[in-house]
Amino acid sequence: MTGRRSFWGWGLEGQGPDAAQQRGILKSMADRLEAPDLELQDEPRLEDIDLPAPRFSVPASLEAFCTRDPYERTLHSYGRSYRDVVRGSRGEFPNPPDVVAYPRDEGDIAAILDWCSDQGTACIPFGGGSSVVGGVEPPAETSHPGTVTLDLTRMDRVLEIDRDSRAARIQCGVLGPALEDQLRPHGLTLRHFPQSFEFSTLGGWIATRSGGHYASLYTHIDDFVESTRAVTPRGVVESRRLPGSGAGPSPDRLWLGSEGTLGVLTEAWMRLQDRPTFRESTSVRFPGDDGFLAGARAVRALSQSGLFPSNCRLLDAREAAGTGAGSGDHSVLVLGFESADHELGPWMARALECCLDAGGEFDSTSPAEKSGGENAAAPRQGAVGAWRNAFLQAPYVRDVLARMAVVCETFETAITWDRFESFHARIMEDMHRAIRSECGTGWITCRFTHVYPDGPAPYYSVTAAGRPGSELAQWAVLKDAAMDAIIEGGGTITHHHAVGRDHRPGYDRQRPDLFARGLRAIKRELDPSGVLNPGVLFDPSA
Amino acid sequence: MTGRRSFWGWGLEGQGPDAAQQRGILKSMADRLEAPDLELQDEPRLEDIDLPAPRFSVPASLEAFCTRDPYERTLHSYGRSYRDVVRGSRGEFPNPPDVVAYPRDEGDIAAILDWCSDQGTACIPFGGGSSVVGGVEPPAETSHPGTVTLDLTRMDRVLEIDRDSRAARIQCGVLGPALEDQLRPHGLTLRHFPQSFEFSTLGGWIATRSGGHYASLYTHIDDFVESTRAVTPRGVVESRRLPGSGAGPSPDRLWLGSEGTLGVLTEAWMRLQDRPTFRESTSVRFPGDDGFLAGARAVRALSQSGLFPSNCRLLDAREAAGTGAGSGDHSVLVLGFESADHELGPWMARALECCLDAGGEFDSTSPAEKSGGENAAAPRQGAVGAWRNAFLQAPYVRDVLARMAVVCETFETAITWDRFESFHARIMEDMHRAIRSECGTGWITCRFTHVYPDGPAPYYSVTAAGRPGSELAQWAVLKDAAMDAIIEGGGTITHHHAVGRDHRPGYDRQRPDLFARGLRAIKRELDPSGVLNPGVLFDPSA
Repeated sequence: MTGRRSFWGWGLEGQGPDAAQQRGILKSMADRLEAPDLELQDEPRLEDIDLPAPRFSVPASLEAFCTRDPYERTLHSYGRSYRDVVRGSRGEFPNPPDVVAYPRDEGDIAAILDWCSDQGTACIPFGGGSSVVGGVEPPAETSHPGTVTLDLTRMDRVLEIDRDSRAARIQCGVLGPALEDQLRPHGLTLRHFPQSFEFSTLGGWIATRSGGHYASLYTHIDDFVESTRAVTPRGVVESRRLPGSGAGPSPDRLWLGSEGTLGVLTEAWMRLQDRPTFRESTSVRFPGDDGFLAGARAVRALSQSGLFPSNCRLLDAREAAGTGAGSGDHSVLVLGFESADHELGPWMARALECCLDAGGEFDSTSPAEKSGGENAAAPRQGAVGAWRNAFLQAPYVRDVLARMAVVCETFETAITWDRFESFHARIMEDMHRAIRSECGTGWITCRFTHVYPDGPAPYYSVTAAGRPGSELAQWAVLKDAAMDAIIEGGGTITHHHAVGRDHRPGYDRQRPDLFARGLRAIKRELDPSGVLNPGVLFDPSA
Repeated sequence: MTGRRSFWGWGLEGQGPDAAQQRGILKSMADRLEAPDLELQDEPRLEDIDLPAPRFSVPASLEAFCTRDPYERTLHSYGRSYRDVVRGSRGEFPNPPDVVAYPRDEGDIAAILDWCSDQGTACIPFGGGSSVVGGVEPPAETSHPGTVTLDLTRMDRVLEIDRDSRAARIQCGVLGPALEDQLRPHGLTLRHFPQSFEFSTLGGWIATRSGGHYASLYTHIDDFVESTRAVTPRGVVESRRLPGSGAGPSPDRLWLGSEGTLGVLTEAWMRLQDRPTFRESTSVRFPGDDGFLAGARAVRALSQSGLFPSNCRLLDAREAAGTGAGSGDHSVLVLGFESADHELGPWMARALECCLDAGGEFDSTSPAEKSGGENAAAPRQGAVGAWRNAFLQAPYVRDVLARMAVVCETFETAITWDRFESFHARIMEDMHRAIRSECGTGWITCRFTHVYPDGPAPYYSVTAAGRPGSELAQWAVLKDAAMDAIIEGGGTITHHHAVGRDHRPGYDRQRPDLFARGLRAIKRELDPSGVLNPGVLFDPSA
């Protein structure tokens, strides 16, 4: 990674749409939202930020890896949700961490945890900072005299490789590209490619149960975790490296989804893949107004076939059109298989039969793209490539939309197949109603990011007209409507974005009360002073 | 299930080897163990058992579903480990439960838990009672004034079927065959076939992280659990039915492996399969002294191929010979694929290439058995069928061996591929040494029951000459040697047999201390009186 991280928006400074492209986005949005007065605000400048002074200093023994530099404190104030980016674009940073620590090893982490526990200072483990759920923001409560944010990105090495078992021991602060760079010489890859890949860390993925590259089978980082190691205020906890076990409840599953509330993940043994050398991919059209539901039936058959496509992304007509993968009158299923072991012709042939049975159409003269090489970053042709490029650019584009007061929100869930059609209809109806009443104009699109034999993981994207200065209030109304529809419809409040603070209202309705009591009991055991990421996932004291 | 359960041994009364077969086993064992004086003791008779009187009665409100019948109390005294069967065959039942309850619904369970919590009486959730790790035995400690064993087998219904999602809501007391009988009319199957299938329950499988039919991919019951419902002393806890989720640590994973210490599982939504209509199976020989290690290399390639065989059982030469699947001079890999969706020729063809690469041999004139039907119970031909039949008969045979004071023990583990060869060598060496010094004659065999991309799950079976009256002391020495070798070699103390009481010494060395503290904190929250299965998995008070 070269260049400096944007202190308020996605990615690196100077990346994303250039001035001409920004004007193009403005014009397009003004047309599509029927909002001719849409204006693009300037980007915020660091020198204009009125940052509160730090409320404390750390002792001299910790100074070597701690900073109170304004850029660092600003950068670590927020994740990268729409709300974060809007606040950032306005230059609003009223509650930054007082200190940012860059621990070099577990000793540094233990020292910070000791000090924070003594002082009652909040301590926030911070990976790449790409949270879209308020997962890395200092607590607003006055119960803590301040916040230290613990940026783990200096702990970024692959420490050990086991080629026989296709596994590696990896420090949890490593960002996606640096991880793949270290694995590539060994012919190995984690193949975990969330949208945030460049700006998120292994530890962040584990702590938030990140969703990745594979549409089926290995949907979450969970499936790749062989063992974990974490530093808690009570000491180090490390699980045994095992390919499988039945010895009591899984200790690793406690860390998966812990969101920095129980300890700081420092290392994990991860299951890796050989770099794929065989690939089949294609796209299938499902025409007409019912195309999305027909596509869903194809995806259900595929999810229950035992073929395990690596890519199985169903885009509704509007989503397909918006990313250049379709013309707007049909849904598109982006379908792919990959392997380092065998040709995939029989897999794709059977998958296309499933699609045909559900009314899918594809071009039989060039049924499937094949590839013998592997380059995750290389753009590919056709609908597959169009979708991928739009996917990686989307967070940069959202920064521009935020500067126009366009309201953007994405939310994702999972639901069983029996309830999917009515669930989806309700989401679309409730959100259309909320968009109309709150914003006047706007739209919502849907795609499937991951699929299971028992149901899909639909991902919704909302774009709506905002009023400058009111866009966060409008966003909150849309967010609440989405949470209500999901929870009342029987879905999960999050499939792979995590809970953080923003999803708490839904999560508190979803998770079993007695399970929450159990989690809080563990929290009291591992973090008796309650300093780790307070307010995320649950209220420790409730 | 017709007939009455044996109060001391495996399965049903009157099943297993008949008198002539028993004499055959005696002669064979006498030869193979070079123990010409081997004698077969008579089976114990219920009327000879000197059962302690119950220490209490339950209140009248509970009597409708409780019993103090001697047969019931005897039957529920033990699981079915070697130690249990030896004690049972001697008629030793000094510590039976005082009362056996057969709850009809959650209300009955809650009433028992309330009463036990008030009295401090131990309460043991009991499914099929097939535990081989001391998981359902009343605690010997005097800290509890008695024990109620909660037999769940009256709660045995499939309550709801969701054909679209291939899932069902099932009461946890259902035994394997009754479950499959209820699913069959819908064309569905759980396809979870542990060796104990006939005599174990859904709740038992979940509580112990049972290992099942599939050699790869869906190795444990864990993978089929969509949601769980349990009654704890603090109330009911139920998770939401979801195909996938990233909302905090998984609530279901807390119940998987909880072994009756946190609550009583009453219902689960389970992911099901369509009944397979395509099947390919064959066996591959790996000749010579190094055949087992060559076979392991083939299995490693298969496990990392992405082909996901449903059967991938590597038998060492002695194991193969003992079950009629081989002649003793080669290892055998029993390999199978199954699907309800597609022909499996390409899968098997590539799998056999992996075997060839590792030096495997198979008969090219009849490369693979194919089947278009499905009948889980039907014996099949060749090495596959031979092994399967021996597998299902083995627990009955063990009862006969126990009556001859032959020492039998099976233990299973999992280990990463990089360490497998040295780990296996150490296990074999340590166990051969222990067998020689403790028993004089005997042997140990190995097979793989399940395989993962990062390592196999080896399963070891020990048969050795015992001295009548001393066989449990001899068994304990062998068990300790196995636990030491596993734990020091880096394996898991159990891959799918659970922890119970018998594996506690190994488990206590394996599991992270702080994780154990966390589990005990949850236990105190859900079971504040500490009445649920005390001593299993952990000491609540430690």
